[in-house]
Amino acid sequence: MRSSLAKRMTAEFVGTAFLLAAVVGSGIMGERLSGGNVAVALLANTIATGAALVALILAFGHISGAHLNPAVTLADAWQGGVGWSEVPPYLIAQVAGAFLGVAVAHLMFGEPVFAASHHARSGIAQAFSEFVATAGLLCVIWGCARHRSSAVAFAVGAYITAAYWFTASTSFANPAVTLARSATDTFAGIRPADAPAFVAAQLLGAFAATCLFRWLSPPVAQSRCRE
Amino acid sequence: MRSSLAKRMTAEFVGTAFLLAAVVGSGIMGERLSGGNVAVALLANTIATGAALVALILAFGHISGAHLNPAVTLADAWQGGVGWSEVPPYLIAQVAGAFLGVAVAHLMFGEPVFAASHHARSGIAQAFSEFVATAGLLCVIWGCARHRSSAVAFAVGAYITAAYWFTASTSFANPAVTLARSATDTFAGIRPADAPAFVAAQLLGAFAATCLFRWLSPPVAQSRCRE
Amino acid sequence: MRSSLAKRMTAEFVGTAFLLAAVVGSGIMGERLSGGNVAVALLANTIATGAALVALILAFGHISGAHLNPAVTLADAWQGGVGWSEVPPYLIAQVAGAFLGVAVAHLMFGEPVFAASHHARSGIAQAFSEFVATAGLLCVIWGCARHRSSAVAFAVGAYITAAYWFTASTSFANPAVTLARSATDTFAGIRPADAPAFVAAQLLGAFAATCLFRWLSPPVAQSRCRE
Amino acid sequence: MRSSLAKRMTAEFVGTAFLLAAVVGSGIMGERLSGGNVAVALLANTIATGAALVALILAFGHISGAHLNPAVTLADAWQGGVGWSEVPPYLIAQVAGAFLGVAVAHLMFGEPVFAASHHARSGIAQAFSEFVATAGLLCVIWGCARHRSSAVAFAVGAYITAAYWFTASTSFANPAVTLARSATDTFAGIRPADAPAFVAAQLLGAFAATCLFRWLSPPVAQSRCRE
Repeated sequence: MRSSLAKRMTAEFVGTAFLLAAVVGSGIMGERLSGGNVAVALLANTIATGAALVALILAFGHISGAHLNPAVTLADAWQGGVGWSEVPPYLIAQVAGAFLGVAVAHLMFGEPVFAASHHARSGIAQAFSEFVATAGLLCVIWGCARHRSSAVAFAVGAYITAAYWFTASTSFANPAVTLARSATDTFAGIRPADAPAFVAAQLLGAFAATCLFRWLSPPVAQSRCRE
Repeated sequence: MRSSLAKRMTAEFVGTAFLLAAVVGSGIMGERLSGGNVAVALLANTIATGAALVALILAFGHISGAHLNPAVTLADAWQGGVGWSEVPPYLIAQVAGAFLGVAVAHLMFGEPVFAASHHARSGIAQAFSEFVATAGLLCVIWGCARHRSSAVAFAVGAYITAAYWFTASTSFANPAVTLARSATDTFAGIRPADAPAFVAAQLLGAFAATCLFRWLSPPVAQSRCRE
Repeated sequence: MRSSLAKRMTAEFVGTAFLLAAVVGSGIMGERLSGGNVAVALLANTIATGAALVALILAFGHISGAHLNPAVTLADAWQGGVGWSEVPPYLIAQVAGAFLGVAVAHLMFGEPVFAASHHARSGIAQAFSEFVATAGLLCVIWGCARHRSSAVAFAVGAYITAAYWFTASTSFANPAVTLARSATDTFAGIRPADAPAFVAAQLLGAFAATCLFRWLSPPVAQSRCRE
Repeated sequence: MRSSLAKRMTAEFVGTAFLLAAVVGSGIMGERLSGGNVAVALLANTIATGAALVALILAFGHISGAHLNPAVTLADAWQGGVGWSEVPPYLIAQVAGAFLGVAVAHLMFGEPVFAASHHARSGIAQAFSEFVATAGLLCVIWGCARHRSSAVAFAVGAYITAAYWFTASTSFANPAVTLARSATDTFAGIRPADAPAFVAAQLLGAFAATCLFRWLSPPVAQSRCRE
């Protein structure tokens, strides 16, 4: 039985809040403890993010699908998953939750509630990285359509764990994450001015991967992994 | 078939003992070997704790539910899992097991059996961190109610792996763990004076998350993951 | 229902491209951030590669078997999996995808599209390492024949995570990977002159392990894990 | 259908050889690359060992039970798993495989085939650590008796990952591993003179945990996880 829209919005809101708390909080902790070794800080950030995704998708997947990501919601709506009328509520819940998560991380670590990031992430290679990162993410999500729903949790957690390291942008791969990370002037931040190119590249990547899997894997099967 | 209360208490006792041995022992080993790099020490501590939770919940889950945590037991009793009359035995077993685990870790590493910690963890940000950490833990546990019981093991292990890094308090998220860690003057310790605020914040977090999931997910399904 | 050859080739092509992007990209990122600590760089490279394999095999396994590896495809054809006539298309897709993945990684990190590696990996101990690495990989793949297909993903990801560290060659264990890594002059590279011995040792290792499992595990069961 | 004894011995032989190659090889690689940071070396050693166990138990479990450990075989025979007449062949295969694995690791890394270790691991705290380590391992194995067989692989891999850090002895927890590691004068070695106390403590730990689970979990269920 499908949950009500209010419950699904709440799940997306709370889940995305925890995701951003994990991304931003572990970035702060990693940077503070690693004594200037960026590789160790990113390793901590990576392990925390990948593990959080596994836990959150297992916990919220049966309620809302645990998209936690506007690019996933848009692709899902295009393929007949969530209805188009539900897309705006999903996106609002995700973006609001993402900003709440940043604020929660800041409060836990004694930072100002919000602060514009000065972390420059610009240029064509960064945008291309986000295209690749999000295309890969959507390939993994669509590709797991025939597995049990828990496989999606492990696959997405594992994929992002890898993509933090193999993309030059550390794989934001999520427009809500990108917007919210522009509001933290810590390890995980991105300058507000650099965010639009990231979001555009992410949407293009999601579109490309979804096109590919429309052909590779029949749509009937695709709808099953959204449970 | 449900195990007898004596068996379930024993499972909680032994499981919590191993959990604390893992938390405290890996903290000592990590600190000794990492040559002052706190990030590397915490990484070892994190990986050991997360992995231990996966193993222990898989091993003891079918006997007692593998709560290993008074906050989980209280929330479970509230939701109609274990009976209220079984809560005191569960809590006693968990706290006694936690102290045994600390003693075992100390004996393995040549430390005094017990020692009051001097590790200050005070202030509103630390307490807020424990509220967030425990709320997230309970969200994950209730959210996995519809999965196979082994999913809870992976979800909890993954969640704590993340929360060690994304909360400013390194996510104790467990009153029995908090009390016992006040008895170790090593990496994982907490000053006895700081423990009550941690416990209070943990109980509040567990309460908040359980309220949320009473509404998000029907109670019938919730009782199934406690097997 | 089996996917068409075109779809399976596409899956092998895209999957191997992401695998190489993960191997080469995370090597570049790891080396750039680790400040000369090769162990930390290899740790990042290891975690990214193992996690990518889990995600990619979960995502592409149901389409093409997610071989992503000519040695696996040849062993599978020998044991009656893919038809021999399909082997050349599989191998072409894998090798072409591997080179695309290297190019993608280079573009993301601002490196030239291709560059011959100067990383010497020669000598009998290196070749022996590749024999051991690939024999172990095929043992794991054939040994998982009776499990659900998702077990193969976790087993292969875990095996390569281990083999990066326990073989002196860091376990290429894949002829397509070896050829493509000769075209990157970064952390993960191998001198073109050293590649043939690696490939020969890999094929021998795959042959040895397949011989062993023809006897250890009945062929009927073996065909089931290729789904 | 149960495999023949010859096949099961071969599985134990090959599996234990790969396990030791993983333990010893990753120890050498970790020590060589970590520039004197023992925590980083042990982290690499830990991740490689835990991941190897997951892969090997998934691959060989359906053939021989993937004990790879005389303490497990003895406990299993006591509980009515393998027959007592099969214990000597199992133990011979495990010990011979363990020494082969050490030799393979040495050949890959250009070390002498065998060399007596000078790594002192003596004293009561070390022996107590092995008691705790092996008792925990057997708790995890018996505790997973009611799960699918693949859960044992993840639980054992996770447990050893944790125990490498939370025991002062880095958790050998396996008599065949202990004997074979006395023949390597590298990171993972143990002085031959220290091995007997380790083995005795391991057998005591396995005995204690098996006694506990004879009572905690009914024997009928226990026999099921040995598939």
